Amino acid sequence: MQGCDVAIRVYKTENNFPNKMNTWQAIAKSKQESLRAAIPSEWIIPAHILPPEHQTDVTSFPRQSGWFTNRELEILSTSAPRILAHLETRSWTSEEVTKVFCKAAAAAHQLTNCLSEILFDEAIARAKELDDHLRKTGKPKGPFHGLPISLKDNFNIIGKDSTVGFTSLVNDPATYNSTLTDLLLQGGAVLYVKTNVPTAMMIAETVNNVFGRTVNPLNRKLTSGGSSGGESALISFGASRIGVGTDIGSDPLYPIASGSLRIPAACTGIFTLRPSFGRFPNFQTRSGLAGQEAVNSVNGPMASTLEEITFYSKTVIDQEPWVNDPKCLPIPWRPAEPKHRLKLAVMWNDGIVTPTPPVTRALKETVDRLRKAGHEVIDWKPTGHKEARQLLQRKFVADGGKSVRGLLAPTGEPFREEMRDYEKATELGVHEMWQIHLERNTLQKDYLHRWNASGIDGILCMILVSFPVDIFGLSVEHGKFAYVGYTGVFNILDYSAVSFPCGVKASKALDVSYHGHKALSDVDARIQHDCTLPHSYSSKSPQIDRTNIRILDNASAVDGMPVSLQLVARRLEEEKVLMMTGVVLQAVSTGWKSKL
Amino acid sequence: MQGCDVAIRVYKTENNFPNKMNTWQAIAKSKQESLRAAIPSEWIIPAHILPPEHQTDVTSFPRQSGWFTNRELEILSTSAPRILAHLETRSWTSEEVTKVFCKAAAAAHQLTNCLSEILFDEAIARAKELDDHLRKTGKPKGPFHGLPISLKDNFNIIGKDSTVGFTSLVNDPATYNSTLTDLLLQGGAVLYVKTNVPTAMMIAETVNNVFGRTVNPLNRKLTSGGSSGGESALISFGASRIGVGTDIGSDPLYPIASGSLRIPAACTGIFTLRPSFGRFPNFQTRSGLAGQEAVNSVNGPMASTLEEITFYSKTVIDQEPWVNDPKCLPIPWRPAEPKHRLKLAVMWNDGIVTPTPPVTRALKETVDRLRKAGHEVIDWKPTGHKEARQLLQRKFVADGGKSVRGLLAPTGEPFREEMRDYEKATELGVHEMWQIHLERNTLQKDYLHRWNASGIDGILCMILVSFPVDIFGLSVEHGKFAYVGYTGVFNILDYSAVSFPCGVKASKALDVSYHGHKALSDVDARIQHDCTLPHSYSSKSPQIDRTNIRILDNASAVDGMPVSLQLVARRLEEEKVLMMTGVVLQAVSTGWKSKL
Repeated sequence: MQGCDVAIRVYKTENNFPNKMNTWQAIAKSKQESLRAAIPSEWIIPAHILPPEHQTDVTSFPRQSGWFTNRELEILSTSAPRILAHLETRSWTSEEVTKVFCKAAAAAHQLTNCLSEILFDEAIARAKELDDHLRKTGKPKGPFHGLPISLKDNFNIIGKDSTVGFTSLVNDPATYNSTLTDLLLQGGAVLYVKTNVPTAMMIAETVNNVFGRTVNPLNRKLTSGGSSGGESALISFGASRIGVGTDIGSDPLYPIASGSLRIPAACTGIFTLRPSFGRFPNFQTRSGLAGQEAVNSVNGPMASTLEEITFYSKTVIDQEPWVNDPKCLPIPWRPAEPKHRLKLAVMWNDGIVTPTPPVTRALKETVDRLRKAGHEVIDWKPTGHKEARQLLQRKFVADGGKSVRGLLAPTGEPFREEMRDYEKATELGVHEMWQIHLERNTLQKDYLHRWNASGIDGILCMILVSFPVDIFGLSVEHGKFAYVGYTGVFNILDYSAVSFPCGVKASKALDVSYHGHKALSDVDARIQHDCTLPHSYSSKSPQIDRTNIRILDNASAVDGMPVSLQLVARRLEEEKVLMMTGVVLQAVSTGWKSKL
Repeated sequence: MQGCDVAIRVYKTENNFPNKMNTWQAIAKSKQESLRAAIPSEWIIPAHILPPEHQTDVTSFPRQSGWFTNRELEILSTSAPRILAHLETRSWTSEEVTKVFCKAAAAAHQLTNCLSEILFDEAIARAKELDDHLRKTGKPKGPFHGLPISLKDNFNIIGKDSTVGFTSLVNDPATYNSTLTDLLLQGGAVLYVKTNVPTAMMIAETVNNVFGRTVNPLNRKLTSGGSSGGESALISFGASRIGVGTDIGSDPLYPIASGSLRIPAACTGIFTLRPSFGRFPNFQTRSGLAGQEAVNSVNGPMASTLEEITFYSKTVIDQEPWVNDPKCLPIPWRPAEPKHRLKLAVMWNDGIVTPTPPVTRALKETVDRLRKAGHEVIDWKPTGHKEARQLLQRKFVADGGKSVRGLLAPTGEPFREEMRDYEKATELGVHEMWQIHLERNTLQKDYLHRWNASGIDGILCMILVSFPVDIFGLSVEHGKFAYVGYTGVFNILDYSAVSFPCGVKASKALDVSYHGHKALSDVDARIQHDCTLPHSYSSKSPQIDRTNIRILDNASAVDGMPVSLQLVARRLEEEKVLMMTGVVLQAVSTGWKSKL
């Protein structure tokens, strides 16, 4: 199966190349074209069923377009463990399963611009080999035998680019696999796509100068989040059962990524686990800020169900990844029995920025359900969160933006507007960095001791509280990320955390804005001021002026979007936080009967 | 029991205060005097039994002076687990045991200048409380019930100084305990002394401007090593069963500490475990380079026997230290069954500096015995060791010496000669530090993969190979440390390692120097040149000139000193490396019949 020459349309990105292009623009154009050309003609969506650009929700496409057979739809909607059971018993072949996910990924890319590398040919060839292997030996290759798994762009696969959004890294194929790549391949996985990221993976949306912008399949006016926003778009579209993304903390004020697994998962209503550093193998992946270790990047699974992220986590750890990854910890999987009565703390706000009405409502409803189910929920003060924010503001630009500048320079690629902090940054000396380490360590100690003293099992809080989200909702319009502090603090603490859709959806009717809001901080005040928030906004409010028109547009944009919450456990408590998420989901679903 | 005013003599240190003292000198004098004053008069060694200054070996003092009763000698020579058994069955009291160790520590200090804080009064009061507790409840307070444990100066104990050798930190008592201090106290330990360290704990000898120099009780012309050299002197003198020190890697060329547990243990013929970072609690200890994390400091036990360091390690981990220490890893004690046939690699040299004749002989004899006992021993190439050395040379002075300068400035204390690299250093920018991180990570990966490919269980190599050690022996004359690269590489790798006396002793007669030595590196060549090494030196060689006189002095100095070796396992394999050390000791003792 070869890539075809048919010129196909991918959902409009922001890169409209002028006639006279600079080097970096020419590189980007060529890369985008070769990516499109890697989609075979039979998987180009026919024009007559292509959703029009004004159609925001495209998640209905697989079921409603008629372009997928019932058999294909069945495979796409089967959970990973059940797919593996079908493969092991040879009732399905990996070739068939792989082709279906390739076709779906091709559709997802055309509708959301979510891919960065396409490996359809290699994937199908490998699937055939795996089928042969099973047929001949009677034994699966490994615990992921024949399962298509998608990877974020920064995981290296030999022979494929890992551009992390820089044109200078186009046509620089990897000469080695990431440690995780090897582990998945040894386990029998089929790697079929790599997914788009923001420049240097340090923006909370997925946009860069190579591939442009990835959009949210639930609402294409919204971002799918970042930095793992290619993954979140692919998975929420239904074109991957399990994908792997990465998560790092960063500046909670400016629009750079913090919670790069949790934010895109929350933007698209899927599940993810942000593990503590060292639990999953992370070696030989590409970074935009290589060598930065004050807060370590981690990787984790993203999927439509809790079952699948749990399955992946256990399976990876059962492979003993610490044998080959010098940073990985020799901690085997420790089964966590469901606890009948959890003691959770709920953080209503972080003392810096007010959560949005739908998020607050989601938290309230979740807490109500938990209490009804017999769990104890106490309030949690955001002690230390302001200090964490100050730490984060100094950390990522500590190299004066040299790492990013060094990756932009070879092709004359400009700094994107979202990366302006890196452009303006002044390099710190090592002595100041050592002081930052000390402040971070003190924060870690104080937070842990407060946690221990409280006797809680976990913390429940929001993920997204950002302009315009802090007023209206949950997902974010393109280019509007302004506050991601609720995730970053747990990167500094290196705590394990799950992002999960709690069952509540944003509602213009229900989520009226706060009366007489008292700002928690300058940031909060600025956000309120910028928005000229009407005191009693509702869907019926009149559109008074341009500001309100914008607000109403935002409100419309997020109406109906799922609200995700974050459940946090201490460092290296991955099994426990996954178990607790199951307990919480059971408690809330009993009341809501919504599909979780 | 109060400190007395009797002016006592402590073994001569290098601080001879002039009549007109600077601020820092006055502070040091006052601190030394108050330390001496904390020794009660009955524990001042009577003048008529005080070993003369020219007596180099003072380890015989407890048994030969007649100053200790047979009962006291029995207690001092009983291993920690057996002492605990006596205490639990109430055949001994903690008060009696504590007083004996206080008396012995007082003697050790007067003969080697090894203490930095004296807690005799508090220790005896606590011992009485513990005895009462056991009498009333029938239950010991914890697994360390009533056992005196000594701590290196940088562990904080509320109300006590942790000067780490800086006069500016004198009379600045800790307001909180180190995490390990709390753990030991909760376990029932009795803390009775803190022990001396070099300035900032970054010299491989124990000398500073507050307390002066600690000397080696096996030979007071030699250093007890650093940075845990107060501990090694105290333990090898017999005045502590279990002490806790710390270990960090550093510059292998210049005289700053690298292998701060292993070097002092090797200098004094005792055992220690250098654990990987995160295995033992390390929080809230004082550092001379606070915030430096490119290579993390770790702490571990030092003792006269393998049994005791194993006992301590298991007991600390059984307390689940990760609950209160945010950097500690939730890895329980994993018993390692003795392996009947080990596959070890022996590293004869690191490609940079040639080991000394007695060390090479010790390695050869150990390897011979291991092979006779049925173990497999292969050769190990020092691939990556040169790169490790270059990394280490850049790392510790990365802050331009600001941390050290900031601690010297308040009292006008000068840089010691051994700290000249810190004085001259230029601060690095964060971007360069990130590149150092990357180089270190690559080294870690390559070393691990080479290890895995070889299928070895561990690496056997030397610890001390330093001028004048590289020519004559094992321990080091004061002020002569020049090369400590054999320990530092395993700090960079964060591997677990045991330093153990292998049973071989240096011998002027046996350890003749090499013929026609071919230098491995510039460092090696310089060392050889500096020493003007006679081609066939032996104890009978004539003293030709001043250089040779110095060499002969050195040879005499180390004659009879025990040789220690290093057994290394991978990261976080503490149980395995302890088990393997036992297997190695059994193999070698079968032949040598020496007391190990």
